Amino acid sequence: MTPANPAFDTVADTADVTALLERGRALSAPVLRAAVDRLAPPMDTVAAYHFGWIDAEGRPSDGDGGKAVRPALALLSAEAAGAPAEAGIPGAVAVELVHNFSLLHDDLMDGDEQRRHRDTVWKVHGPAQAILVGDALFALAYDLLLELGTVQAGRAARRLTTATRKLIDGQAQDISYEHRERVTVEECLEMEGNKTGALLACAVSIGAVLGGADDRTADTLEAYGYHLGLAFQAVDDLLGIWGDPESTGKQTWSDLRQRKKSLPVVAALAAGGEASERLGELLAADAKSNDFDSFSEEEFAARAALIEEAGGREWTAQEARRQHAVAIEALHAVDMPHRVRKQLTELADFVVVRKR
Amino acid sequence: MTPANPAFDTVADTADVTALLERGRALSAPVLRAAVDRLAPPMDTVAAYHFGWIDAEGRPSDGDGGKAVRPALALLSAEAAGAPAEAGIPGAVAVELVHNFSLLHDDLMDGDEQRRHRDTVWKVHGPAQAILVGDALFALAYDLLLELGTVQAGRAARRLTTATRKLIDGQAQDISYEHRERVTVEECLEMEGNKTGALLACAVSIGAVLGGADDRTADTLEAYGYHLGLAFQAVDDLLGIWGDPESTGKQTWSDLRQRKKSLPVVAALAAGGEASERLGELLAADAKSNDFDSFSEEEFAARAALIEEAGGREWTAQEARRQHAVAIEALHAVDMPHRVRKQLTELADFVVVRKR
Repeated sequence: MTPANPAFDTVADTADVTALLERGRALSAPVLRAAVDRLAPPMDTVAAYHFGWIDAEGRPSDGDGGKAVRPALALLSAEAAGAPAEAGIPGAVAVELVHNFSLLHDDLMDGDEQRRHRDTVWKVHGPAQAILVGDALFALAYDLLLELGTVQAGRAARRLTTATRKLIDGQAQDISYEHRERVTVEECLEMEGNKTGALLACAVSIGAVLGGADDRTADTLEAYGYHLGLAFQAVDDLLGIWGDPESTGKQTWSDLRQRKKSLPVVAALAAGGEASERLGELLAADAKSNDFDSFSEEEFAARAALIEEAGGREWTAQEARRQHAVAIEALHAVDMPHRVRKQLTELADFVVVRKR
Repeated sequence: MTPANPAFDTVADTADVTALLERGRALSAPVLRAAVDRLAPPMDTVAAYHFGWIDAEGRPSDGDGGKAVRPALALLSAEAAGAPAEAGIPGAVAVELVHNFSLLHDDLMDGDEQRRHRDTVWKVHGPAQAILVGDALFALAYDLLLELGTVQAGRAARRLTTATRKLIDGQAQDISYEHRERVTVEECLEMEGNKTGALLACAVSIGAVLGGADDRTADTLEAYGYHLGLAFQAVDDLLGIWGDPESTGKQTWSDLRQRKKSLPVVAALAAGGEASERLGELLAADAKSNDFDSFSEEEFAARAALIEEAGGREWTAQEARRQHAVAIEALHAVDMPHRVRKQLTELADFVVVRKR
């Protein structure tokens, strides 16, 4: 039987990574909460709901705040520059704020009703609050960085701006690709680089910049983060089709149900051959179908099988491995404490073997 | 007959002000256009439509870009600090970008279909583009400032962040007041200070900060800008009810048609007495009425007359004069070239006597 995540069939030792993610969460969460508390009502409540700290009725909740890979990276980033992990905290929180600003807006633009097993903000609090609170989190990210008042903070804010602009470009591409029948593999990779790579890259440089790193070091760390982001997204695309619903918290064949032109689909369509052509015909018919919403498990399974037969699954797994390798290579172009390099390597391994 | 704008019944000499606004437009427009050109398609096109540079079909157009008070202020702001006007340009453009980001998002949140005599972006290009391009303009504002790479630019960006957060707070208040039957005069002034005062304040400090001014000078200039903003908004609220449609480009009784709880309404409701009570009853009934959209001119005229009878019009005109006086007073607490103080004074005069 094929493993749920076919990028790697070994299981990495994740004890160390769990501790790293936990440290990222523990050091950034109080600062994130204090930042969100600065928002005027009712935006503070809406944001608290989005972060999973309260439920739709306002009762305390300890929702799933996500994997917290970015905060863990931002703290390691500071340590990579020889600074204490704590120097990366404002950067970690600023990146989380920008990430969540984009989730709030993207969920509304995409009409997504669920995130992390809960109704999205626009479903619960309405579109206006989703726009407004997204804007507020975005502004808050700059507040947090610029109130440091240092030259380093200005440089960090500039990198965050560049990443955010790419994030927005990626969302623009994602929206425009939805209306197109065909998307090339290159376009898909560019879009995923913008949507996922850029902010992960920023997470890995922002702590270093705050810790006093020069631009060359920051750029190289960003290369690690960018390719890590592409590896992360390739795995996400695999999980979006073949992930175990128990682990991912998503429906079976989730990305197929949403007609996402993710890497396995795009690669399968580009591959040529019989399965590729048959898949192309099916998806073209699906795009016009009125019954799509009532498709059975078997119909999605048939599409997934064609994607696999055309080579889309294996190509994407290889792509994850390739991006992982490029990321690790970048790590060796920067001088940093041995322990930090080891932990950044373990985090990269974790990202590609994860099952959710 | 009462003049269209009852705040002042003299007409200021506007030749000088026209030249100032023209300079602001001439120096900032090319930089604004170049900044917008950096956006990835289709966001550049959507933004160009919003700014009135092209029409809905993409044909060149020279739409009404607004009064351009903010760019004029940002350039004078640099001169107030003894720097050349040009030092204020990135600040002028950053403030315009933030202003337009908020227009794009507010129009969507408020469901407003028209701005500057044209369909709003969400009407023409859809809600997703309005959100996305708003986000992009917001990020672009920081790009423009932070790419300067100076300590001053970081300080300017911090002031812009503070202003933007207030802008967002003001919109949150505006939305929440819509659902309330009564809003106090203090709440209305706070909301208008956030929505209009904060960004005008930033326009008047940002050029000075970029030109090397210290925080005390910048704070005092912001006081001028903040009160100027409140005066501006009080006049806007008068024009929103009694403005001449030929000049304002809005419908007659525009704010009444939109059920806006603007200063004249709120002041009239707070005044007490017979007309105030009658107005309160009428507006409470209107809020529940199904026929509101088919109200005649006479029905709105009757409401306007009650607002005036209860003293809401005169109170708002007085408020404009009071805020104007406080703004002028702040100007005298800062050392600046005589010419610059004179021009800032003339701009303040213009803002309260304008008819659109």
